[in-house]
Amino acid sequence: ARKHRIAVIPGDGIGKETVPEGLRVLDAAARRFGFELELTHHDWSCETYVQTGKMMPDDGLDRLRDSDSIFLGAVGWPGVPDHVSLWGLLIPIRRQFDQYISLRPCRLLPGSKSPLADRGPEDIDFYVVRENTEGEYSSVGGRMFPGTDREFVSQQSILTRIGTDRVIKYAFELAMTRKRRKVTSATKSNGITFTMPYWDERFAEMAKHYPEVKTDQFHIDILCAHFVQHPDWFDVVVGSNLFGDILSDLGPAVAGSIGIAASANINPEKKFPSMFEPVHGSAPDIAGKWICNPIGQIWSGAMMLEHLGEKAAADAITATIEKLLAEGGPRTRDMGGQAGTVDVGKAIAEAV
Amino acid sequence: ARKHRIAVIPGDGIGKETVPEGLRVLDAAARRFGFELELTHHDWSCETYVQTGKMMPDDGLDRLRDSDSIFLGAVGWPGVPDHVSLWGLLIPIRRQFDQYISLRPCRLLPGSKSPLADRGPEDIDFYVVRENTEGEYSSVGGRMFPGTDREFVSQQSILTRIGTDRVIKYAFELAMTRKRRKVTSATKSNGITFTMPYWDERFAEMAKHYPEVKTDQFHIDILCAHFVQHPDWFDVVVGSNLFGDILSDLGPAVAGSIGIAASANINPEKKFPSMFEPVHGSAPDIAGKWICNPIGQIWSGAMMLEHLGEKAAADAITATIEKLLAEGGPRTRDMGGQAGTVDVGKAIAEAV
Ligand SMILES: CC(C)[C@H](C(=O)O)[C@@H](O)C(=O)O
Ligand SMILES: CC(C)[C@H](C(=O)O)[C@@H](O)C(=O)O
Repeated sequence: ARKHRIAVIPGDGIGKETVPEGLRVLDAAARRFGFELELTHHDWSCETYVQTGKMMPDDGLDRLRDSDSIFLGAVGWPGVPDHVSLWGLLIPIRRQFDQYISLRPCRLLPGSKSPLADRGPEDIDFYVVRENTEGEYSSVGGRMFPGTDREFVSQQSILTRIGTDRVIKYAFELAMTRKRRKVTSATKSNGITFTMPYWDERFAEMAKHYPEVKTDQFHIDILCAHFVQHPDWFDVVVGSNLFGDILSDLGPAVAGSIGIAASANINPEKKFPSMFEPVHGSAPDIAGKWICNPIGQIWSGAMMLEHLGEKAAADAITATIEKLLAEGGPRTRDMGGQAGTVDVGKAIAEAV
Repeated sequence: ARKHRIAVIPGDGIGKETVPEGLRVLDAAARRFGFELELTHHDWSCETYVQTGKMMPDDGLDRLRDSDSIFLGAVGWPGVPDHVSLWGLLIPIRRQFDQYISLRPCRLLPGSKSPLADRGPEDIDFYVVRENTEGEYSSVGGRMFPGTDREFVSQQSILTRIGTDRVIKYAFELAMTRKRRKVTSATKSNGITFTMPYWDERFAEMAKHYPEVKTDQFHIDILCAHFVQHPDWFDVVVGSNLFGDILSDLGPAVAGSIGIAASANINPEKKFPSMFEPVHGSAPDIAGKWICNPIGQIWSGAMMLEHLGEKAAADAITATIEKLLAEGGPRTRDMGGQAGTVDVGKAIAEAV
């Protein structure tokens, strides 16, 4: 049987509750579709940090390197600052494994509710493709004249040709697999006049190679407004690290799915493992009660299977999620139900 | 009588239609509230550029310098690239006159419709305060290795202590004039790790001087999501040049007022003239038909009067706009009516 090696990192808070349900569903899919998952568990988390002073062991990245994918829960806990928890685990994985694509589906799922008036599932169904390694999140910067009136900080935003072209290309390739075949570029070349005009230039250049794909572009300010006013305009939206970050929270928010949204950090060449994680965080307020919604984790599992070449299994999982929501299966509190985390996981696993 | 010197720049497209209506209402307010407006008209626009190669004359800024305020319509026209029209007129005015505050009210006006379900005027009533001179819109950057695989562009984002403190202070001062007294800071210190932690530091420092003001902060990605999910959380929101730009389009979008929103570019010390302009652009598709909505321009006029110390007149104009919308007075097409630009302007002017 086909075998996939998965590194599992539940992380913090509700990650410890959603990951087991994600695995339950993956296991059901493996049995039905005839593949094997070889799991390696890593208990790296803010707890580890408190005990050992490190989010993961020194050879952490090496231990992940040979897996085909990483299945992550959530990272972060009160008392451990972000620059420790995120920069000690999440960000190094994204960077070291050159997961240069962050991919997030934005869909209004049947049976769930958008904060927008008069919008149904047919109106909101697009992907945000985010550059995930460079851009505004750079490591070049500093502070001068500290403590004086002349004090200033500076941080460079860097777009390389390689980094820009590959994410834009990915967006076009994704659009080619979709019915509407449209790519929207997020820019701000009217205000940010060194980096963003270059983004536009590379976008226009890449578009020439995909004559079948329709394109448009908007400045990020009005693009955010259009997400709210016209979510039906979008099919694939591509943006820099920061713009993609913003749009990939705003997209699920307008779709009413931010609590159940999935995300993938992908190294498309499969030279390194890719990482799959729900969009939600570790939710300290409800952690430990087993009432959190596992759908984001399960949906991320489906994205992982698709990346691993198990498209039929991936489709079966997303179809099951949709069916469960549309037909009023068990739901957690955030969706107006009474079910626990495990009830939802079991219902989906059984249906798969 | 008190006299205010106003430089008037209708600019392009519908700016030529909305500005006369704005002036009509200002004139009515002046007569009722006993002050005088001395107007100087400047026909600077993309047309000027096509004829003369310049958006404004070489001594343009000098000609504006002695006015108390600038009343602007819209800038931009197809065929003239943004870096010419905006950077030849709008941006130099903002920078040279140190209009370091961009202020935008985000309100769901009675009788207008938000794209959000189940939201009324009591839910959406906040201000976005944007830093308007530095940050991500910097003039430091460049390109290296052009045309090769090593090519990259870089642009610095710069936050100075002076620039950061003064915009944050303005936000706190504004909050002190409001009922809820709350300031929300837009940050991204978990990802943009040189500039944004500094922003957080200065925000925390300033907060100490305003113990009566409640504060919170969100990363820009989830903050955008909250604008959609919980617009009722916000009172005054302060952000860097880019974050403020994004939020001040998203805010009016969730309020359903992007077509009628007003904005102010303010030099609070009044060392230089401030500039008042609607949020909408020159709208080439409907320009010349006299069907555009003048409310954004008129509302900007009210903000101008408030800045000039004519608070009673400013309040009278905004109250009139609200009343007209709530009571079904004449409306332009974008608001579902049949009225022309001039009809709406006249109705408001008469009621004032
Ligand atoms: C035209 C553009 C440079 C400008 C900006 O981003 O400052 C506009 O979006 C605005 O908000 O006034
Ligand atoms: C935690 C943070 C650094 C991260 C990001 O901005 O990349 C998060 O917002 C995300 O989108 O995964």
